[in-house]
Formats: sequence, structure tokens, C-alpha cells
Amino acid sequence: MFQTFSETARPDQGPPRLARFQTHLKNQHIDAFLVPRADIHQGEYVAPCDERLAWLTGFTGSAGFAVVLQDRAAVFVDGRYRAQVRAQVDTAHFEPVDWPEIRLADWLKGALPDGGTLCYDGWLHTAEEIEKLAAALGDHGFELTSRDTPIDRLWEDRPERPVGPVRIYPDRLAGESHAGKRGRLAAELREAGQSGAVITLPDSIAWLLNIRGADIPRNPVAHAFAVLHSDARVTLCIDARKLSDELRAHLGNEVEIKGYDQLPSVVMEADAPLRLDKSNVPAALGNVIETAGKHFEWGQDPCILPKARKTEAEIAATKEAHLRDGAAVCEFLTWYEAQAPGTLTEIDVVTRLEDARRATNALLDISFDTIAGSGPHGALPHYRVSDSSNRTLQAGDLLVLDSGGQYEDGTTDITRTLPVGDMGDEERVAFTRVLQGMIAMSRARWPRGLAGRDLDVLARYPLWLADQDYNHGTGHGVGVNLCVHEGPQRLSRISEVPLEPGMIVSNEPGLYKEGHYGIRIENLVVVQEAEPLPDASHTGRLCFGTLNFVPIDCRLIVTGMLSDGERAWLNAYHAETRDKIAPRLSGPARGWLEKATAPL
Amino acid sequence: MFQTFSETARPDQGPPRLARFQTHLKNQHIDAFLVPRADIHQGEYVAPCDERLAWLTGFTGSAGFAVVLQDRAAVFVDGRYRAQVRAQVDTAHFEPVDWPEIRLADWLKGALPDGGTLCYDGWLHTAEEIEKLAAALGDHGFELTSRDTPIDRLWEDRPERPVGPVRIYPDRLAGESHAGKRGRLAAELREAGQSGAVITLPDSIAWLLNIRGADIPRNPVAHAFAVLHSDARVTLCIDARKLSDELRAHLGNEVEIKGYDQLPSVVMEADAPLRLDKSNVPAALGNVIETAGKHFEWGQDPCILPKARKTEAEIAATKEAHLRDGAAVCEFLTWYEAQAPGTLTEIDVVTRLEDARRATNALLDISFDTIAGSGPHGALPHYRVSDSSNRTLQAGDLLVLDSGGQYEDGTTDITRTLPVGDMGDEERVAFTRVLQGMIAMSRARWPRGLAGRDLDVLARYPLWLADQDYNHGTGHGVGVNLCVHEGPQRLSRISEVPLEPGMIVSNEPGLYKEGHYGIRIENLVVVQEAEPLPDASHTGRLCFGTLNFVPIDCRLIVTGMLSDGERAWLNAYHAETRDKIAPRLSGPARGWLEKATAPL
Repeated sequence: MFQTFSETARPDQGPPRLARFQTHLKNQHIDAFLVPRADIHQGEYVAPCDERLAWLTGFTGSAGFAVVLQDRAAVFVDGRYRAQVRAQVDTAHFEPVDWPEIRLADWLKGALPDGGTLCYDGWLHTAEEIEKLAAALGDHGFELTSRDTPIDRLWEDRPERPVGPVRIYPDRLAGESHAGKRGRLAAELREAGQSGAVITLPDSIAWLLNIRGADIPRNPVAHAFAVLHSDARVTLCIDARKLSDELRAHLGNEVEIKGYDQLPSVVMEADAPLRLDKSNVPAALGNVIETAGKHFEWGQDPCILPKARKTEAEIAATKEAHLRDGAAVCEFLTWYEAQAPGTLTEIDVVTRLEDARRATNALLDISFDTIAGSGPHGALPHYRVSDSSNRTLQAGDLLVLDSGGQYEDGTTDITRTLPVGDMGDEERVAFTRVLQGMIAMSRARWPRGLAGRDLDVLARYPLWLADQDYNHGTGHGVGVNLCVHEGPQRLSRISEVPLEPGMIVSNEPGLYKEGHYGIRIENLVVVQEAEPLPDASHTGRLCFGTLNFVPIDCRLIVTGMLSDGERAWLNAYHAETRDKIAPRLSGPARGWLEKATAPL
Repeated sequence: MFQTFSETARPDQGPPRLARFQTHLKNQHIDAFLVPRADIHQGEYVAPCDERLAWLTGFTGSAGFAVVLQDRAAVFVDGRYRAQVRAQVDTAHFEPVDWPEIRLADWLKGALPDGGTLCYDGWLHTAEEIEKLAAALGDHGFELTSRDTPIDRLWEDRPERPVGPVRIYPDRLAGESHAGKRGRLAAELREAGQSGAVITLPDSIAWLLNIRGADIPRNPVAHAFAVLHSDARVTLCIDARKLSDELRAHLGNEVEIKGYDQLPSVVMEADAPLRLDKSNVPAALGNVIETAGKHFEWGQDPCILPKARKTEAEIAATKEAHLRDGAAVCEFLTWYEAQAPGTLTEIDVVTRLEDARRATNALLDISFDTIAGSGPHGALPHYRVSDSSNRTLQAGDLLVLDSGGQYEDGTTDITRTLPVGDMGDEERVAFTRVLQGMIAMSRARWPRGLAGRDLDVLARYPLWLADQDYNHGTGHGVGVNLCVHEGPQRLSRISEVPLEPGMIVSNEPGLYKEGHYGIRIENLVVVQEAEPLPDASHTGRLCFGTLNFVPIDCRLIVTGMLSDGERAWLNAYHAETRDKIAPRLSGPARGWLEKATAPL
């Protein structure tokens, strides 16, 4: 099993660690120290050696931070983690703070003496983050100073840095050699008058060099830094133990290998001006360069947009991955529906689903920890089951099942909401509204140049008509055997990045009734040029192509609520699912699929 | 008749006037001069004495500008006016330029010598406009200099400045006395540390002082300037001939009257810092203040938002105005539908419709020139019929009829699309899609804080599904016995102004098939707090209340395309129309209304 269910941190471990941390602060005459969840690469998942926030506080969520003063400490978490932080953290020692409603600078006002100093580790925060924080703190008269984090010296049994082997990502799946990518991006740098670009995001490096790594769970990337020079050479800073001879041959002569810790000297030796991405480069690296008086320019990591615009080969590959994954999910659903209410737990569901994906013999990892939220757990959009939270599925429950796999040819992500036994009208009406939103987005055709924020409302409108809504974006970008959360495009009211052909996003509206149930329906879709229609007044429209093919549970649909167009979409989707998935299924699953895809 | 149908400018008048203009430029050693359509108050309609662009070029559209060089001239117009400019202007002398695709600075690059100077009249352009233009010209090495416009001296029979009488706008309709408004806004200025605000928009002044004027067609406002001081006094610069004793008594002691031309001295004598609105204050006024070294601050005209948030009294008043107007439109429609195809012209339609509104005995003016576009004319969203363009309505035509009235208690605006005889399937399918968009917007309920750009897509989506669309916003703000185009809110992809309770906007999606037909359906709606719904997951939603009640032609609807919710909306709208309008109608119109509002 990739997924585990044990609680990795216990509330009772926090206070003694906090006491040692605070002693250190007193000895060093430090007023306050910031402990982020992020690592130096700013990823959503971090390696065990980088679980600093969890080590100190017990909190294991994917976002948040702590502030430690000599006699006080607080953990700042957003709306997703309000309940979890109280379960994982000893709140007698760590005060939970509702963030971002309460901002750090405002909280410090009541905690730090006038003119006090907040210390942070400049390698664990981005330049942009520190710039904003410095401005906010400055308004209150506080100082901000970079120091090495005390945790790395206090954490005695800290795991080693990962040395996961790096593998070649085949050109036939990538659709472009790394020489081609390097050449293309280097030309852009020359055009911008820049001598190179510093790249600190592991998935940017993986994409650029057609490699994949194994340093952190769920994301097939390696801890590394790179400088892409404007002559198309790359200097790659990485622990050499991760590289086989074959991998070195794949990288070739134009990719020079340096140690993982050598980034500062590589940057200082590179020609100026280098491009640095303020939103992900460590603040400390920016400081090193500025202090040395070396000329640089802020600009976007040059891999971000080309990586988001998938090649035809990547799209073909991930389509195949989604069909394979869809067949696995259908095998799981065939088994699941044969089980009686009251006999399965959430962990049983997660385990059996992972087994179904493993049975493809192609699963490299799951793409994130499966969310299997039954009954009231479904109302927590990011619920992750543990041994202590595990719950038996009861008749009348809804089950939100959000999961995905990492395959060499693609990264999948799908959510289906399943009934346990018979379902009440309220849930069916709500499910139908969520489905209408999901269908509206799936059917969208729109003029080139629009961003997620221009479309987001389409998935909410059927819910809005009933004063219902969901407190998350409609969708996130997704990689191809890379991160399941990949920027820069999103389907969200705050995303201004134009949607371009080849970009993959999730389409996942939901509805959450606290203490009762959750509903979410999710397919991944890829932006593509729309086939022209007759009688069009405008041409050159974009549309979404659907990647996932798994039935949507018709027992939860109030058919009379669907318009003809919505019903036609659903029937066509189910017909296509039957055609594409049936040939990949076992006999029993084929029988199940036949029924599950019957036209409405 | 308020509306006229004669062509006010002739192409043959332009060249001799241009020759005199160019002689003046040579004598004065001026390289180039900018001739805007706008007047000093930046309104959409201008007084006859301010029709400078039309006098020079013949072009009478509501937006555009000319540039005159010593041996060359060009007229810049946007997409709405490409055809009109060619019909009204002698293109052998005035080159038509597609603006904003071709920007002024770029066009000048090929026309003006290096280092050349463009002159403009600083009273006819806003400070913001000149700032942007200076930056764009500066990039090309051109200079920008303010000079008095030569037109005012060359135009021999130039009409006098208007001296329309100013009338009192009753407190019972406004919902707040001008003393109350002045006090409220003055407190905001004190809060901002400003001693006053300069107000140059006539509708802001009309709103602030509860007055209405008669200086320009269609918009019941007076040419005036004002300074609102932070002690709630107002200095009003206006031609005193417009003011009756009764009006002076209404204004009271806290409103001091100065001459219309005294604005600069009033501004120079006022305490600093004054607030100036960069988007509407004349550049010349900004220059006067800056040159004198007087401290000022840029900020929004303080009337803009309060004026947009209508009071309960204003909403009640405009509801009554819309019922009266709706009854008049229904009387017109009863007559219209009794006429045989081939017997009516567009001018007949405009005339009879204005007569129907006049028959209310409450019509002060029309709120804009009626758009009555039959057949191919309907495809021009801003078509205005003239004697020369007038066309007979033929069987198979669609007629786009967009019109409104100015009443003391409100400003109306409504568009209906009407069939002439039997209509083909293509038109009916297209009409139904436009209607679906209009209904989707009408039914919207949304979280507080959203702007027009967050909702605009709702009205387009049914068209987008067919690769159809319209090249204009979905709606504009509307005043109450003020301008029919009033900011700052809009239903548009580029509007970021949050929609607040009391704001009125139009909801008018359309579809235009060039050379064939147009379709547009428009109601005005007012933003209001939504009544809470059962099973809501989110509360505090906003919604639209509809102001116009006139049947939508069901002969143009393909009923099977409507969802249950859309049909229910339409039937409820028609039932409400019957209930509200029938008691106001003549016998024949009541019979017509009964049929026109029969449930689908």
C-alpha cells in the first residue's frame, strides 16, 4: 500500500519539542521564529526530513505555519484544517489561529513587543512571501531577519535527505526531447536579454530534462535545482547518488552535474542577468545575489507555461492512462456495489481501490492520498482517513471518493460520489445540482483568451439558484506523470491565466453540508480547439475534452431536473464510457458497466 | 417628436471646413491637432454647440475623434461605426481608421515627422486620457501640447451654449435631501483628509443637488461644475439664467452660485487638498492646479457610487415609471401587430412608439434615440434610422426595437425583438438561445462582492454552446431620470465594480448576423438582497429584481429548447406582466396582452 492510515504525529510530542525550541530562542535572544510547512522547493508534498511543522506541532495538513515566541506559540491554518489542527495539536501549548482571516502581522501585534524581530529561515520561504511579510510587519514596526531554522539541529532522529533514483522520461511520452525544450526556452531567454534562469521547482526540472524522481511521496520528482543558460546548457544541482550511468547518458554533455548544495556558487558563477521567479525562489538565494551586487531580473520560471501546454504526445499518453485508471475504478465499483451497507469501512474502500489500481501492473504511486469521506466525513473536502477517524459506511450515507494514480504515461484524478443504500430526496436534488454544474463546465465552448475566472461561475450557477455553493475552486491544473496540482491555470474565480490548448484542469464542483454529507463530482478535462459548428457567429472557440471515463451514479440523479442538453451530455458520456472501458474489464465488471451506463 | 430623422451633417461640408482648419494650423505652425467627440463634461450626448467632430468631419456617432495634420486628416472610430463613418464622411479628405485596433500613437508614427507635436484642447480631454496619450506618444518621440481648439473660432454659425431651465428634483423621488447627500459625502471627504472635491460630471451634480437640467438631448442634466467642500457647502458654477427663484430657494444658503466659466478661480480659492477624478476632470484644470503648485489628490468623484446605489424611494419611483412605460409599449405593440407586413417603415415604428409614450402625459424626453432595426439593420447594434436609411418592414424580417423614456420618476430602457410575419427556424432557435441567456441572468443569485465580470458569462453561455456570441457587454448601469448609460457598475467581462443592492443594470444579450438580422432582448434589473431559500448552504445572496414588464414574443421561442426552470421563469414573468400592466391598458391592448402572456 502506498497510503498509510496511522497518525504520524501525536499531540503529546509537541510540548517537549516546543520547550527545547523556546530555550534555543532565549539562548539566542530571538523574539520569535517562523516555522513553515513548505520545504525549499515549495511543493505541496514534502519529504519526511522536511516535515518540520509536523515534527514541532503535530499538525500534518498540507498548508499552514507556526510562530514560536519565547513564551507562546501559535499554528495558523486555513478553513480546510480548522478541525484537524485541534485534533492533532496540543492547544494548551499551540494556539490555533484562523488564517488568512487573521493575518500574521496582526496577530504579532498582540504578541510581540514593539520593535520586536521575527526570524525566518530564508531557504524555506519565497522571495515574494518575505517581501509581502516584511511590508506587513513594517507597518507595525516589526523587523524581519533571516536565520537558520533551529529545527534542523533540535530534531535528533531527523530522517536523511531522500536519494530516490532518477529515471528517464521517454521522449515518446513527452513529445519533445530535453534538447528541444532547452533550445526553445533558451531562445526565449535570449529574446528577453537574460543569460539564464534559476529553476527551483522540482516538477519544472523534471519536465525540462525529461526525468522523473522519487524523493517525495505522490509526486514523481527529484530534489534538485537547475540553471538553464541562454546557450541551452543546464547546470543541474542534485545528489549524484540518484543518477545512474544510463541517466547521465540521457542528460548528455549539455547538462552539467553539480552537488545539491552548490546552487549558490553555480548562480554566482553564471553570467548575468539571470531570471529568478519571485514566487518560488528561496528568499535566501535572492539575498545572496543581491548582496553580491550581481544583476538579476524577476520573471516567471520559463518552464511553467510550456509545461502546462501539454504536447500531443502527452495528451495521447494521459488519455491512455485515464482509460486504464478508469477501468481499474470500474473494477473497484463492481466490487463495492456488491457489499452490503454496514460491512465496509473507509479504510476498506481506500485499500480496495488502491488494489484495483495496482492490478493494472502500471501503478507507480497514487497521485495523492485518497479521500474517502463517508457521511459527515464527506463534508470535509480534504478528509484523509486514519485508523482513529475510520468509519463504517452506513445505509443512507453518501461516500465522496476522490483518488488518482501515477502512471508513467499520466497522472489521474477522479471523484465520484456514491450512495450507500437508498438515498433521500435532499441528497439527490443536491447531487443533481452539482452534476448540472459539472456538465455545464464540460460542455463549455468559449472565445480564446479567457481564464478560469471567466468560466468558474458556470459550475456554480445551478447551485447558486438554490443558494448553495462550495468553498473551493472549481478545478486545478494537472500534470502528466507529474504533480496532480500543477499551475499556473486553474478554474477559479481568482485565476487570470488564459486557458490554452493542451492545458489540463479538473472540473470538480461539490456541495458540503457540515455534519451530514458531502458531494463532489470530478473529471479531468483538457483544453482543445473546438470543431466548428454550423450557424456559428464566432469561430476559433476552445472547448474541453474529457479524460476520465467512469459512470456517474444515476441513482443519485433527479432526472426531471436535467435539461435535454444536460441529459444528452450524460447519455453521450456514458455511451462513450461503455465503448472505451468495456473492452478493458473483467466479465462481472462489464455486466456492471452495462447497467451503470444505461441511457437516462 | 423628440427623435429626428434628418442627416445633420453632409459629407460635402467637411472638406472646405478642413481646408480652413489646416490653413489655421499652418499659420500657427501647428503640426497636428486632435478633435474629440467629447465635450468638457465627457458625456455620451453633447449639446449642438459641442458637436465639433460632426461640424468638421460630418461623422455623428457617439464616440470617435479626428486628427488633423497640415496636409492630412483621419477619423478614428470603433467597430460600431465602421460603416457609418464611410457614409457620413468624405473619405477622400478624411481617412477612416479602425480604432482601437490601430492606436493613435502608432498611426501618427507614419504621419507626423520625428519629434513632431500634437496639440489638443485641454478642456476637451480628461487628465487620464492625456496622461496615457503622453506616455504612448513619448515612446515614439512625439510631444503633446495644449492649445485652444481652432474650431470654436472657425465655426461661424456655432449654436449658443444651451441655457435650459433647471428644475427641482423632489425629495420624495430622490429619497434623500441634497443637504443629507452633501453632509454624507462631506463626512467622507473629511475622513479622507480632503478639503473638497471637484465635480465635473453633470449627472453627478444633478444627483447631488436634487436638480435636473435641459442642456443636452436625452439626458436631463445641466452644464455645470461644482466643488463640494468638506463642510458640506457646494460652490456651483452655472449660467445663472438657468436658475429660477424657486430653484435658488431649493438650493439654499449652503450652495453658492458662481459663473459657469469661474471654475478655475473657484478651484484655486478652495482649501487644499481637493479631490480630482482623473477619469473625468479636464486635463486643463489639472494643469491649472499643478502649475499653481496647489496640493490636490486623485480620487473618484464622490457622487459616483452613492448615485449608483439607488435609494428605496428611487427604486419605487423607477418601478412606477417602468410600469407606465410598459403599458405604453404594450399599447404600441397592440397597434403594431395589427399592421400587415410591407406597410410600415422603421420611421413609422419609431414615431408611433414615441406617440404611445407621449400619450402617458408624463414623457419628458426619450432616454436615447430609438433603435428600430429591421432585417439587416437589426444586425447593427446601434442602428439609428434616418430618412435616407429608412426601410419598409417585410414579411420574414426580425425587428430589433430598443427604446426608452425619460419620466420625472425614472429612466426606462427596453428591447424587444419582433417578427414580421412568419419566422424561419434559424431565427427562432437563435432567439431562444438569446432568451435563455437573458433568463439565466434574470434568475441569478450570487454571493455579495461579485462584479459584472463574474456574471457576464451567464448570459452568453447558451449562445456559446452554438459558437454564437455578441460583441458588446451584457448590460450597462442606468440612472433614475438621469443618464440611461450610468456607471460605474456594468454587466461586462471588464467590469470589476462589485454589484451592490440598489444598482440598476440592463440585461441585454443579443445575436447579430451581418446582412441578415439582429436579435436582442433587454430588461432593466435592480440588484437586491435575495429572500433566503430553504436548504441553503450559503446565505446573504444577492439577486436581480426585474423592472420592465412587457411580453416577450412567444412566437419566436422554440419551446422544447427551454428547461423547466427557464419555462417557469418566463411563465411567471408573463403572469406578473399581465397582473401589473393589464389594469393600465385600453380594452384592445388588454385583449392583446391576455394572448401575449398565455403560459407556454
